[in-house]
Amino acid sequence: MPSVFSRIIAGELPCYKLAEDDLFIAFLDIQPLAEGHTLVVPKIEVDKMIDLPEKYLSGILPFARPVAHALERAFPDKRCGMSVIGLEVPHAHLHLVPLSTAGDISFTRPKLSFTPQQMLSMQALILQLL
Amino acid sequence: MPSVFSRIIAGELPCYKLAEDDLFIAFLDIQPLAEGHTLVVPKIEVDKMIDLPEKYLSGILPFARPVAHALERAFPDKRCGMSVIGLEVPHAHLHLVPLSTAGDISFTRPKLSFTPQQMLSMQALILQLL
Repeated sequence: MPSVFSRIIAGELPCYKLAEDDLFIAFLDIQPLAEGHTLVVPKIEVDKMIDLPEKYLSGILPFARPVAHALERAFPDKRCGMSVIGLEVPHAHLHLVPLSTAGDISFTRPKLSFTPQQMLSMQALILQLL
Repeated sequence: MPSVFSRIIAGELPCYKLAEDDLFIAFLDIQPLAEGHTLVVPKIEVDKMIDLPEKYLSGILPFARPVAHALERAFPDKRCGMSVIGLEVPHAHLHLVPLSTAGDISFTRPKLSFTPQQMLSMQALILQLL
């Protein structure tokens, strides 16, 4: 059965998309740790980031760079933290999390919840800064 | 004044080194969150990971890959998490942290402390699995 991320990539599930190319897609996390929390996902279903084929492993941070810069412009009092945890969805993904303290990117914190309208506004804000 | 990482790279400060090439060095964190907690550091003093020149940004995960695999062989009940926080040392670095729960890579946890002998044993264990 395809992962939830493969279903998003295939267009079977919606997402608040920020960027996409042949190899990767970036979209807002719907259970975010912070405003602007973004997932960067390779378009290949491999469990562990570190097991990705070379072109994905070398390409993911350059792909993420403009998205991370847009996040820092959208939330200028924060810097863009990054994490790979990998315990929930068996499809490698990179979290981009605007943070001002190390606790802001702690995955044991309660997740935030935004309305669809708030998610759309956040997406629009980031897209115009990309 | 050079960062603590630049001083390690220059050989002015010691480290428990695991790997090195022209662009990067990897060594054990001396204030680890977990056994095997490793720092991967570019040999260029740039504050933010996302501002690194292209060859560093595309090279850091492929450089980290064999180290991460060695960590997973050394601690086979864990998987290798990764984080970039960037609030302490203004020299970009990637944390590799063997984890079994998301809390294992929470930077608000108390740090562990190992004796030099324990650090050397950890280094030797990982090196033989690299």
